[in-house]
Amino acid sequence: MIHNFNPGPAALPPEVIARVQAELPDYRGTGMSILEMSHRSKEYEAINAAAEAQLKALLGLGDEYRVLFMQGGASMQFALIPLNFLPAGGVAEYIVTGSWGEKAYEEAQRVGSVHLRASTAADGYRGLPNVEDCTPDANAAYLHITTNETIQGVQWPAELPLFGDVPLIADMSSDFLSRPFPATRFALMYAGAQKNLGPAGVTVVVIRQDLIERSRKDLPVIMRYATFAKNNSLYNTPPVFAVYMVHLVLEWIKDQGGLAAMAERNARKAALVYAAIDASEGFYSGHAVPSARSLMNVTFRLLSPDLEKQFLAEAKEAGMVGLAGHRSVGGIRASLYNAVSPESAAALAHFMQDFAKRYG
Amino acid sequence: MIHNFNPGPAALPPEVIARVQAELPDYRGTGMSILEMSHRSKEYEAINAAAEAQLKALLGLGDEYRVLFMQGGASMQFALIPLNFLPAGGVAEYIVTGSWGEKAYEEAQRVGSVHLRASTAADGYRGLPNVEDCTPDANAAYLHITTNETIQGVQWPAELPLFGDVPLIADMSSDFLSRPFPATRFALMYAGAQKNLGPAGVTVVVIRQDLIERSRKDLPVIMRYATFAKNNSLYNTPPVFAVYMVHLVLEWIKDQGGLAAMAERNARKAALVYAAIDASEGFYSGHAVPSARSLMNVTFRLLSPDLEKQFLAEAKEAGMVGLAGHRSVGGIRASLYNAVSPESAAALAHFMQDFAKRYG
Ligand SMILES: Cc1ncc(COP(=O)(O)O)c(C=O)c1O
Ligand SMILES: Cc1ncc(COP(=O)(O)O)c(C=O)c1O
Ligand SMILES: [Mg+2]
Ligand SMILES: [Mg+2]
Ligand SMILES: [Mg+2]
Ligand SMILES: [Mg+2]
Repeated sequence: MIHNFNPGPAALPPEVIARVQAELPDYRGTGMSILEMSHRSKEYEAINAAAEAQLKALLGLGDEYRVLFMQGGASMQFALIPLNFLPAGGVAEYIVTGSWGEKAYEEAQRVGSVHLRASTAADGYRGLPNVEDCTPDANAAYLHITTNETIQGVQWPAELPLFGDVPLIADMSSDFLSRPFPATRFALMYAGAQKNLGPAGVTVVVIRQDLIERSRKDLPVIMRYATFAKNNSLYNTPPVFAVYMVHLVLEWIKDQGGLAAMAERNARKAALVYAAIDASEGFYSGHAVPSARSLMNVTFRLLSPDLEKQFLAEAKEAGMVGLAGHRSVGGIRASLYNAVSPESAAALAHFMQDFAKRYG
Repeated sequence: MIHNFNPGPAALPPEVIARVQAELPDYRGTGMSILEMSHRSKEYEAINAAAEAQLKALLGLGDEYRVLFMQGGASMQFALIPLNFLPAGGVAEYIVTGSWGEKAYEEAQRVGSVHLRASTAADGYRGLPNVEDCTPDANAAYLHITTNETIQGVQWPAELPLFGDVPLIADMSSDFLSRPFPATRFALMYAGAQKNLGPAGVTVVVIRQDLIERSRKDLPVIMRYATFAKNNSLYNTPPVFAVYMVHLVLEWIKDQGGLAAMAERNARKAALVYAAIDASEGFYSGHAVPSARSLMNVTFRLLSPDLEKQFLAEAKEAGMVGLAGHRSVGGIRASLYNAVSPESAAALAHFMQDFAKRYG
């Protein structure tokens, strides 16, 4: 029995894996694998349309939004966003609360004029900026935030403070669909599928129609959100298999009870691991300040790098994989995305208690 | 029994599908699906490295080339190529022999200065341009060709005429690895995987080191070939599952006898279908002139659109799918990529003879 705490690509629902395996050689009586089917087939068009509809239903969004299935990962979005939405002479604003926001901000600087509205770099990305420092200039082209910083384990609350009136764009790669949130506050949300949504290879973009209309028209066609919207993500060949799996994972989320059920399940899992940290009397020290703790990525340190190595080795022996912190920061990180079971979180908390007893 | 003539995504080797299915829930004893595994795991790094090595071995390429696994499809390459390799003040040249070359040429025009060196549009993309019209200006940044035009069914011979000394870049999406060819003639070759290489969702790029070094450095990081080369295609999360499948398909090609065996098999299949056209006394008329006929996509018309509809309907009844011509041109197209079996080609040829007898 493996407990998969990978930061992404990450654990998927066992029911979804079983279904994919069962229908792999013959997709629903077509005599072909989904891997061999045309993206212009009626079967794939149904998957594509269903995935958009499912996602909008989960988020409670209407006709004013489109869902796009793109390629290139969230990292490609870092470039496409300023290319599409930062007009000549305009300035985009970024709030940076960790390594991914930093990357998004740096990539945007290669495209146009960008302003760092707020950053928590000085405190080592442990918390969130003061709300009063977060209001963008009213003329900003957009404001970009990262709802969950996967590496530092710092998360904005689902009910964000109001950030002013400019279009709000969010990298939600590592907490999308993990809880209910006021989606209509956002002009654009994006997420690589490989944490909460499916396998690596597709990036989900939810975009408000007016932003599409406002986007630059002098870009290569393949780099325009308008191209994907107009063609229902079928301008060119989409990553068929990845979208098919997203469709199945969205069905699974709905069957579990939707975003409210995900939130309850995720809060329960994270509470187990944070409790093990807090009860350890300093043997484990959490990276994030308690008010900014992520429910998706629990990050902590042990008393020394050697002890962390020992922790990782023994955890692996106990079937717990993916617990090493990001290579840029070290330490321990337990990723507890939607598909990670409460049993896995409990097993980790138990292991942590036991390890602390033995080495503390 | 289904005969899959899809133009891409397309038929895959049954042995590969069976293997994927068998190892889907537990990748080689890891206790996890390949879909759930980190792209930083040693297992995925082995797949990634093996796929590069396999491809270079099949093409007989050494250290002067790199293989990159990218996202966005061949259509993204249409934009990335001029972005990376067309310096300010430079001119890129294009030879256009069909719809895909046209798209590549149009996209490049959105990026910089481009010259149409030769085109066969005036004759409806039935043949190849005269060799004497194909020599680019010696100062051209690069020359771009499309080795096989998937929609028109027009293919350059494997031994291309010499096109001068500028870097030669080729879209090989629909005939890559279908035959031996002098790969060292090319500075960059690219192909969406979804025809001869695997499922949709990864684009394979083979690039000569000197071209990487010459590429523009003022682009977003994610849009630079240099980024992918330097990071072994692991700068950001790759499409893990698609690369894993490419790795398996490359193994299958090698097991079949490599590119020479593919060429023999593909020539045999195409000969069956072209023979049915040529023996039909005008009931079927091939689109391409015989000297430019594609071994991958056999395109032809019947005497009327109604008869074509009847042909497609009866073919479907007989288990033959994917035979409709591209929606932009109509007619019939039989795609005979590597994984399409000789039995499927024979079944189609037989059906064509029978249909011609009944309706001719
Ligand atoms: C919050 C966040 N943004 C962006 C990325 C980069 O995503 P990708 O690898 O899909 O480009 C990640 C990857 O882990 C992430 O966690
Ligand atoms: C020769 C050729 N080039 C480019 C493309 C576009 O590929 P993609 O859909 O991966 O962008 C195709 C698609 O069929 C093709 O056949
Ligand atoms: Mg992705
Ligand atoms: Mg596809
Ligand atoms: Mg592709
Ligand atoms: Mg990956």
